[in-house]
Amino acid sequence: MGQNLAEKIISAHLLSGDMAPGSEIGLKIDQTLTQDATGTMAYLEFEAIGIPRVKTEKSVAYIDHNTLQSGFENADDHKYTQTVAKKIGVDFSRPGNGICHQVHLERYGVPGKTLIGSDSHTPTGGGIGMLAIGAGGLDVAVAMGGGAYYIPMPRVIKVELTGALRPCVSAKDIILAVLRELSVKGGVGAVIEYAGEGVATLSVPERATITNMGAELGATTSIFPSDEITRQFLAAQGREGDFTPLAPDADARYDRVLTVDLGALEPLAACPHSPDNVKPVGELGGIPVDQVCIGSCTNSSLYDMLKVARILKGKTVHPNVSLTISPGSKQVFTMLAENGALADMIAAGARVLECACGPCIGMGQSPKSGGVSLRTFNRNFEGRSGTADAQVYLVSPETAAWSALQGVISDPTEIGDLGGIEMPARFLVNDNLLVAPAAPEEAGAVEVVRGPNIKPYPKTEPLCDHLKKEVVLKVGDNITTDHIMPAGAKVLPYRSNVPKISEFCFTACDPEFPARCKEKQGGIIVGGQNYGQGSSREHAALAPLYLGVKAVIAQSFARIHKANLVNAGILPLEFADAADYEALSLGDELEIVGLIDALKEGGRLTVKNNTRGTQFAVRAELSERQVEMLLCGGLLDYTKKMSERQAMR
Amino acid sequence: MGQNLAEKIISAHLLSGDMAPGSEIGLKIDQTLTQDATGTMAYLEFEAIGIPRVKTEKSVAYIDHNTLQSGFENADDHKYTQTVAKKIGVDFSRPGNGICHQVHLERYGVPGKTLIGSDSHTPTGGGIGMLAIGAGGLDVAVAMGGGAYYIPMPRVIKVELTGALRPCVSAKDIILAVLRELSVKGGVGAVIEYAGEGVATLSVPERATITNMGAELGATTSIFPSDEITRQFLAAQGREGDFTPLAPDADARYDRVLTVDLGALEPLAACPHSPDNVKPVGELGGIPVDQVCIGSCTNSSLYDMLKVARILKGKTVHPNVSLTISPGSKQVFTMLAENGALADMIAAGARVLECACGPCIGMGQSPKSGGVSLRTFNRNFEGRSGTADAQVYLVSPETAAWSALQGVISDPTEIGDLGGIEMPARFLVNDNLLVAPAAPEEAGAVEVVRGPNIKPYPKTEPLCDHLKKEVVLKVGDNITTDHIMPAGAKVLPYRSNVPKISEFCFTACDPEFPARCKEKQGGIIVGGQNYGQGSSREHAALAPLYLGVKAVIAQSFARIHKANLVNAGILPLEFADAADYEALSLGDELEIVGLIDALKEGGRLTVKNNTRGTQFAVRAELSERQVEMLLCGGLLDYTKKMSERQAMR
Repeated sequence: MGQNLAEKIISAHLLSGDMAPGSEIGLKIDQTLTQDATGTMAYLEFEAIGIPRVKTEKSVAYIDHNTLQSGFENADDHKYTQTVAKKIGVDFSRPGNGICHQVHLERYGVPGKTLIGSDSHTPTGGGIGMLAIGAGGLDVAVAMGGGAYYIPMPRVIKVELTGALRPCVSAKDIILAVLRELSVKGGVGAVIEYAGEGVATLSVPERATITNMGAELGATTSIFPSDEITRQFLAAQGREGDFTPLAPDADARYDRVLTVDLGALEPLAACPHSPDNVKPVGELGGIPVDQVCIGSCTNSSLYDMLKVARILKGKTVHPNVSLTISPGSKQVFTMLAENGALADMIAAGARVLECACGPCIGMGQSPKSGGVSLRTFNRNFEGRSGTADAQVYLVSPETAAWSALQGVISDPTEIGDLGGIEMPARFLVNDNLLVAPAAPEEAGAVEVVRGPNIKPYPKTEPLCDHLKKEVVLKVGDNITTDHIMPAGAKVLPYRSNVPKISEFCFTACDPEFPARCKEKQGGIIVGGQNYGQGSSREHAALAPLYLGVKAVIAQSFARIHKANLVNAGILPLEFADAADYEALSLGDELEIVGLIDALKEGGRLTVKNNTRGTQFAVRAELSERQVEMLLCGGLLDYTKKMSERQAMR
Repeated sequence: MGQNLAEKIISAHLLSGDMAPGSEIGLKIDQTLTQDATGTMAYLEFEAIGIPRVKTEKSVAYIDHNTLQSGFENADDHKYTQTVAKKIGVDFSRPGNGICHQVHLERYGVPGKTLIGSDSHTPTGGGIGMLAIGAGGLDVAVAMGGGAYYIPMPRVIKVELTGALRPCVSAKDIILAVLRELSVKGGVGAVIEYAGEGVATLSVPERATITNMGAELGATTSIFPSDEITRQFLAAQGREGDFTPLAPDADARYDRVLTVDLGALEPLAACPHSPDNVKPVGELGGIPVDQVCIGSCTNSSLYDMLKVARILKGKTVHPNVSLTISPGSKQVFTMLAENGALADMIAAGARVLECACGPCIGMGQSPKSGGVSLRTFNRNFEGRSGTADAQVYLVSPETAAWSALQGVISDPTEIGDLGGIEMPARFLVNDNLLVAPAAPEEAGAVEVVRGPNIKPYPKTEPLCDHLKKEVVLKVGDNITTDHIMPAGAKVLPYRSNVPKISEFCFTACDPEFPARCKEKQGGIIVGGQNYGQGSSREHAALAPLYLGVKAVIAQSFARIHKANLVNAGILPLEFADAADYEALSLGDELEIVGLIDALKEGGRLTVKNNTRGTQFAVRAELSERQVEMLLCGGLLDYTKKMSERQAMR
């Protein structure tokens, strides 16, 4: 039987496991990328593993998140990243060079290759036919060291695109239509594969808008074929040599097929506060707008920007609206400045921000209290904008620009035909903000600069056979990684400083938690259902590790956070009987004996509550690899051990 | 006897007093400006005075400081300012339109007029022949209401410019030379008046660079004549009708004359941590640079930017340097985008930031720990960059751009001749980000939007005749307004919210101070010498007012802060015998009886220390107007009373 696209790339990169959906597979990773909010930790982890130089075909460190620099921490992180990248063989993309996903697409993406990145929108690379997956920093560190990347073999959902978009309806509306259909959970455990005659009507950056926001489906990744359009894009980037055609076999099998008629699509908006709360823009007409933000890894390509400039040209942004525009890359920014489009934007009253992630990740441009903000971004979770009661709508660049002029949410198809946007045959290629690493023979002389905000990976220790610790926190259901480890402008600067960031750990639930952990020298956390849902941030495990948390006993775990706990060497245990949760209190002393044998023999364990004189049963549902990892002290120590073992052979 | 420039404008605007240096004069104010970090309070004060509409010829509210918007507060402030401006008759310059001083020069500056602005760099307007003075928010509010602005009649220092600048030596080097000569105290109580053949070699924006940074001399203001160059500038702005020639009389008298030979000047730098710590750039060669920031109200004109673009064109910013560029106004930004200069900057690797004050006021771009930062700005006080141990050098745009390429502090005269920079005969005029106020008959219908960050002016009360309060704080010598009311990205968003900003009052000296004031319902502060030195920020008086401080007894006061205390209705008292300071302690109960009569009769007072059973003598050195003000509850209540009295006539 034939293979679909995902299966073709996976089988070409399979290191372990079999390709039955749900079973764990190990993949060889060709490329990695990091951004600066997660990257510093990935490089600290790589250093801790102890491998001197990356083993991937290409690894790139981008600076695009922490660009406001309100305090020394960001610049310290940038300097560390630049110097460590030089030493270990990683390309460094300087601040000002643009958003990782946009730049990677332009300058590094290669059809058919695997890419993991410490950013959840890494699937952007699927637009150019890569198998591109968002991962934790430690996963990226391991992949840089040549280790496999493990995922459950995904299902594959085909989205068949028919017809062609009408004027002022765009790629963003396609992915919003898919989100409306599948919901934010519809992609979990799946790769979304795009096919059909509509594919050829979409440029690579348009495809990338769609695969980018596939992250909001919960999908493992999304992917487009590599075709003539792809070849043209690569040729226009001066990289035709990187082209490989890639298509599913005619008889490829899919777990589900969804059809989207492009010609029938209308402009859509994801309404507050979820990317799948999608409604036609036409139905929202008349809502007054306070702010419009254009940019982000979803919608900051040259084509997006040229459309926006065309709409704004000769007009004035409505007096009640603050319009910000962040071009996606230095390439895009320079070309806009050269061809007059940027002048049109500025003349119309746009606030042009640095070419970076900016307001998409809450780095500035928080709307006013209760403000309505239209954004071309990918997430509109409550409070993400930095304003707790803001109402954020996710829309296409056309809808954003047109609404900015009208002052109310407006349907851009009112414009009629925008006129042809002529795309250049060659993009302006100038890689002078990409710093190449030192040659291997010169790497030894590179000094890695560690400012006071750079602290090493926390101390780990192998799981001990006899655990006796107090309950240092008891929380309820649906604890998110934002509860465990908040983000935001106040906390993000400390992502390279686990001791400091740990002071914010769980403080939303219990301000005394960090101090209590220090006093008790760590302990055990008790949680309810769906513990650790939300983002994949590994700091939600690293901060508890630093604070001495040895185990989390919960009614159930969110998948990624559970994996992160194991990676950090913290034991995740589930109540055999959920009702036992009730009988536990803060301060209870819990004891488990014979832990190691129990984990090796299926993971059934008994926990004694010494304070109350009771006991209850728990399960550790872990793969053999994970048990091995815990016995080493976590993924970092495990990788170190594997790497040493390999070196000894 | 003939008059100098300053005397001519002053005598044409004199409402009260006589023009003997040092004696108080009241001036009619033609124009006012505010920026958003100080402006919200100025408009709250104007509202509290109760006059419905401004009485100036032109008042403008700019948004340029709080543009990062890390939280709802900034956008709330912007919305409040926009709506209150519309109601009371003030032009509103939208965010994105640029830095107040640059925009005001381009679009509003008129030779011979008076301008006060709630920003210390308001003297920029002196470049176009205005008498332009930085003032407190309340002063601006009073002037908007038609009240006089009071200053001590300044001395006038003439700076005679001879010759012409060599290539790559620039206006910034002229003011740095004057700072080297006069020091940061050399301009106190004086107007600096530029004259001589060199004047005609400088464009209006170059003159404005010089008058702008005259603020660092401590000068009341600085001023250039209005001549053919001025006429050409106004014509190029489409405002030739605003031109008036203005020159000192041939026999004008000056208190001091200083000569600067432009031809002999070399590129200069103000070294850490003072604007008068000036050395030739050539002597600093070889210091490695981490960051270069170009922009600010000092150096962000089109001419400055074109020179920078010329230096950067076709080159790459050194890999160890982060170069940021913030154009000064939308006019400048648009023209750079139209003529290709911006493309040259971006191509070279500059990080182009929003057209606003940005890093100059610590809004982002803090250097790395211990980093060396070259800035075209006007202040390099320790920590102002947001990084406590950063080393900031103030330089010209040429020195900044050239050093950014070299990676070390470098003398731009090494470039040789840059080639002629052709300036356009007409600037691009597009005032679509300037919002006109409502017509008087429509002002009533304008709703002023007050988000949760907008709180009214604190409650005041007339000075009571019998004061009995505890000492709630005792501090030493040289307390700065930064001790009293810190600035920085964390505190600045609360400038429109005195209750909130008061939580930070004096916390650098005593974290318990705000809580103690609340518990004791206010009290008395005891200080040493030079109490309240530093910036003119009125919040250093408003926060104590809100916290219930009734009097400050110090060994001596800094002039502006003392005036701010009186404006806020707080009594400033000086020890008759400085040694009495020693005998006071936190918590002592002090008592003064017969206050009002004593103030009216020369200000000799006796303070009883009830706790210790002692007493000591103090002086209140206040003008009649100031005593009257205190009896009303401060300048706001005084102005209200005067205005009502006028209305009743």
